[in-house]
Formats: sequence, structure tokens, C-alpha cells
Amino acid sequence: MGSTPYLRLDEAILDRNIAAMADTAAARQVSLRPHAKTHKCPQIAERQLRAGATGLTVATIGEAEAFAGAGFDDLFIAYPLWVDADAADRLRALGERARLSVGCDSVEAAANLAGLPVEVMVEVDSGHHRTGVPPESAGELAARAAGLGLVVRGAFTFPGHSYAPDGTGRAATDEAGALAAAGRTMAAHGVPAQVLSGGSTPSAGFVEPGVLTELRPGVYVFGDAQQVELGTIGFGDVALTVAATVVSHAGGRVVTDAGSKALGADRAPWATGYGRVLEVPEARVVALSEHHSTIEWPGALPRHGEQVLLVPNHVCTAVNLADAYRLVGGGTLPVAARGRNC
Amino acid sequence: MGSTPYLRLDEAILDRNIAAMADTAAARQVSLRPHAKTHKCPQIAERQLRAGATGLTVATIGEAEAFAGAGFDDLFIAYPLWVDADAADRLRALGERARLSVGCDSVEAAANLAGLPVEVMVEVDSGHHRTGVPPESAGELAARAAGLGLVVRGAFTFPGHSYAPDGTGRAATDEAGALAAAGRTMAAHGVPAQVLSGGSTPSAGFVEPGVLTELRPGVYVFGDAQQVELGTIGFGDVALTVAATVVSHAGGRVVTDAGSKALGADRAPWATGYGRVLEVPEARVVALSEHHSTIEWPGALPRHGEQVLLVPNHVCTAVNLADAYRLVGGGTLPVAARGRNC
Repeated sequence: MGSTPYLRLDEAILDRNIAAMADTAAARQVSLRPHAKTHKCPQIAERQLRAGATGLTVATIGEAEAFAGAGFDDLFIAYPLWVDADAADRLRALGERARLSVGCDSVEAAANLAGLPVEVMVEVDSGHHRTGVPPESAGELAARAAGLGLVVRGAFTFPGHSYAPDGTGRAATDEAGALAAAGRTMAAHGVPAQVLSGGSTPSAGFVEPGVLTELRPGVYVFGDAQQVELGTIGFGDVALTVAATVVSHAGGRVVTDAGSKALGADRAPWATGYGRVLEVPEARVVALSEHHSTIEWPGALPRHGEQVLLVPNHVCTAVNLADAYRLVGGGTLPVAARGRNC
Repeated sequence: MGSTPYLRLDEAILDRNIAAMADTAAARQVSLRPHAKTHKCPQIAERQLRAGATGLTVATIGEAEAFAGAGFDDLFIAYPLWVDADAADRLRALGERARLSVGCDSVEAAANLAGLPVEVMVEVDSGHHRTGVPPESAGELAARAAGLGLVVRGAFTFPGHSYAPDGTGRAATDEAGALAAAGRTMAAHGVPAQVLSGGSTPSAGFVEPGVLTELRPGVYVFGDAQQVELGTIGFGDVALTVAATVVSHAGGRVVTDAGSKALGADRAPWATGYGRVLEVPEARVVALSEHHSTIEWPGALPRHGEQVLLVPNHVCTAVNLADAYRLVGGGTLPVAARGRNC
């Protein structure tokens, strides 16, 4: 199997990244509950737990099922689930295998959780403005959920505005402020938070001890071009690349066979292109089709048929396009929860 | 199975779209070889052939294998393949089941095709500036390929610059000009083109009879938000949507559970958002995360738990994220060639 594109995983860098984030969490006196949506792979989650993670974060019931089926017994679905009858049946079945927490940002959604074997984590908005209640409303929602008979475990937020150049430190400050406020209002409503959970890969290193009790970064295991361009990591920390083959020199540029169906099409407004090239920092992926990436390449072009290693902008969406990782040392690992969107 | 997100396919609109493109091709006196990368589904390809398509276009050897395995025996891999030893073995096996053509835009790649059971289609650049030789160089490449013992069937181009507001008609003109020039230079080099193949969904309706012998549109079977915003189709022609559930009203907006892992993250510079909402033309998907789409919604918001139908910007990448279509009338169809990137 020489054919490209495929996901190429360097386990030595993976293990180093896992150890480094464990150290980061320990130094900040928070527990680590990594987000498994990045890798969707039980074997990688096992390494995270062996390095000290206390449980896993997932995004969907389907991901929770994949990891519970592999023996993971402490799962947080960090998403404001809307639970219909089918989802309720699935959560009941999951509750027999794992301690489950579920995100919630409305009384409407809380009502559907009543009676299910789940603990509730109130989602608060710390500045990303996606989902979550304002921090000062967390106590009221927690009290309403408790009034429905639900166990409220704490509050969580995703400081997604950390994904901006020079925004990372500020997002960590916002995160701590929002979780502290949520904790105060929950205590004032008689529903004290045992867990105040935050965290993203860019903001993790900016967390100060004292407010957060838990971090949920995901991307750090692999790294990606966004993290490189944000300055969170260097190219040497990138564990996962997409191996691609040069198929054309049309227009004096390099065209490879890894397009948006292998790299994903994510491109933040501040990104310098559609991905980067490992070990060629001056190269830029300037265009992307489903099966083509067009690269402006400094100096002599790699020849037709040469392999190059591309760094996706956003590794979570690139991984979700493949069924397996190929390990640098040989062998494969499954992307077991690929496509588990619901 | 009430859970979202999922691909929702309206077969009545699908069949109408298939018939309309067959009529378009007939009126322009060209044969139709639809691109199967859009649907990746043998059952949909069968409907295209029943409506008069003469064969299929695919993007990769893996897609060719999926369709040859389902009995399709005339396949054009419209891609400048780099054929290593493994790919050569696979093409040999494919050649026993199907008449195969393969794209080529370099002598280097042609050399790898020599001796394999494939016919060559020279790729020319008609203005999209991705892959392909300049039209005036097509004859030289065709002659070099013929000199290697290859059968050169013709020339092809993808007028991808048709994907721009007001660019569609011009792209069709460029396409015809490039293919006519390629045909002339190939004849002058003693390698006359039997096939001059072009075509994209936006440009198909602008093709004039006389130059092209074949069209290869893909997206027309389903339609998508790009086609709506280009003016190629109306919302009533959209056969495929992503069914999503409203999970939050945070910030006074609608947030659904269909994010970039269901819709794809494609966003052309001219797109008005990350997708559209069927039957709510004023709504805009203003932000997208992996499992969230944030929608600015006119008037009263749909309630928590309500389903809405989202129209992906680019249907080819959205389909590739799912394993199956759910049909409006009940039942499913497989996305059989999902993930067949190589």
C-alpha cells in the first residue's frame, strides 16, 4: 500500500505531546479530561489515561458509545444535547457502562434529561458566543435543573476565541472569569459546582491555578497548522500529517493528491493558507479542491511522484475523513468513531 | 432513529435533476458522463445511466473500484494519476472489468501508464489554473504518450472558474476555446481527439453545440448552496439537505447540531455563509464548528428540538462525511465509495 493520501502518525511525538499536556495540567493543579473527538481512537485515549487523564470528553452520543464500548467508564458529552426518545434510550444504555455527564444550556433541554442516568454540566459562554448561558445565569439554570431532580455536577465553557492570533491569553482570562462567576452564582442558588471545566489547546498554557478544576483540550495530541500559526506549538510538535504525492507541476506550482476530502476545508480568516508543509515552512497551500492541493513552493519543486507531508489546518476534521492512521513505525490504528455525528 | 444530523434525500427532485441534465446534454449534442464523486452511490449512478449517460467519471482508483465492483464498465478517472507499482496492479485488475480512461498532464505520469489497460485523456487548463497543460501543448503531450504506446482518446478540462458569480458564461467560452485548441494541436501532431470532454454543473447550460463531445457535471444531481448562490438552480431544485436539530438559542440565534463534520467547511469567498436553510432564504449560517452551526434567523426562532433542513455549500464534501442517505419516502442508500481517496 504505497498509495496516498493517508494519515501518517508519529507515535514518538504523540507520546511526547500527551506527556507535555499532562505536565501542563499538573502544574496548574487541574485534572485533565481530553477531548476524544480529535482522535476518535480508543488506543490513543488509553495512552491519555495512562498519562493521568481522569476521563474523556466526547461531542456526541455516538462517540460516547464508541468509547464506552471500548471500556472507558467516565465520559463527559460536552454538548448541549437535545434528547429525544431514541437518544434517551441510548443514554440509558450508556449509563449502565459509564459515569456520564452531559452539557446543558437551557431549561428546555434539561427537562429531557430528567430521569436519565446522567449528571448535568451547565454550559456558560465565556466569549466565544456559540452556545452556553451568560455566567451570571448559570445558578438559575442549575437550580431549575436540580428542581427537575437532576444532579448538577458543575459548569463548563469552551473559550473558542482562543483561536485568534494574540487572543489566546485573553481567552484564558475570560474563561477563568466566566467559570468563577458561574461557580459563585451556582453556590448562591444552593447548587455548588464540584467541577469547573474549561480548556482548549491554545489556552491551556495560559490557565492560572485557582479557578478551573478541569481542562478539556483535544488538538494537542497531534497538533495542526492552526496551532503552529497561533504559536502554540512548533512544526517539530506536529505528530500527524497527511502524506500526499506530487501529481502535477502545472503553472510552476506543486499539486498533490491530498485535497479537501483528505485535509478538510477549514480555513480561519487569519490562516495563511489551506494547510502547511512539514519541514518546508515557506510553502503555502494556496488552493484546495476535493482531490488537489495547490502549493506555492520555494525553490526547486519536488519531483512528480515524490511524497510530501502536509499539515492540515484543523486536525479534528482531517482525521474524521479517514478510517485509519498509519504509524511511522509500521502498523495502523483505527479512527474508530469516525463519522459518529449523532 | 430520530437522531440528527443525517443526509436527507428527496428522490423526486433527484430524478427530476437527472432528467433535466440529460435534456441539457441532448440539446447541446454532447454525451453525458456524470461525475460520481458527488454521490458515490451505485444506485444513483444507475439512474443516471438509465437516463442516457454513456459512462461515469470518477476521481480516484478507489472510486473506480467501487463502481466497477457494482458493474459499471466504462469509467474515466478524470485526474492526473501518479501510478506507482500498487496503483498499476489495481489498474490492471480494473482493466479486466471496465473500459478505463485516465487523465494525464505530464510525460512523467504518461510513462507510468505505458503498458497498462488504460486510454489516456490529456488534461488541459481552460482558465481554472489547477492542473492541465496549456491547450496549445496538448498535441505535444499526446504525441509523446502515443510514442510510449499509449492510446490517446482525447482531451479534457475542468472549467472550475465557472464557480464565481457572473463567471459561468465566460468559463464555458474558455472551456470551448481550450478544447478546440487542444483538438487542433492533437490533430496536427497526428493524434486526433475522439473525445473533447468538459463540463461542470454551473457551465453546462452555457455550452454551445459544436466543440465539446462530452460533459462531466457532478453536483447537479443534488444541488447545493453554491449552485443556489451562483443562480444555477433554485431552492426547489435542492434534492439533498442535512437534517439538523435546534439545540440552543444562545445569543438570540439558532444553533443546530449539524456542524462542519456534517456540512463540510467549504466556503467560497463569494458565499454568503457556511450554508443555507431550505425554505428560509433570509437565514444565514454565520458560524460553524465541528458539531454546531450558528444561524441568524429572521423572525421567530424555531423551538428547541425542532428539525431544520440545511443546504450545504458544497454537497460533494458533505456527502463524503456520511455513510448513508435517508430517503424522504423511507429507506436508505449507501454512500458506497465514501472516503475512497486513493
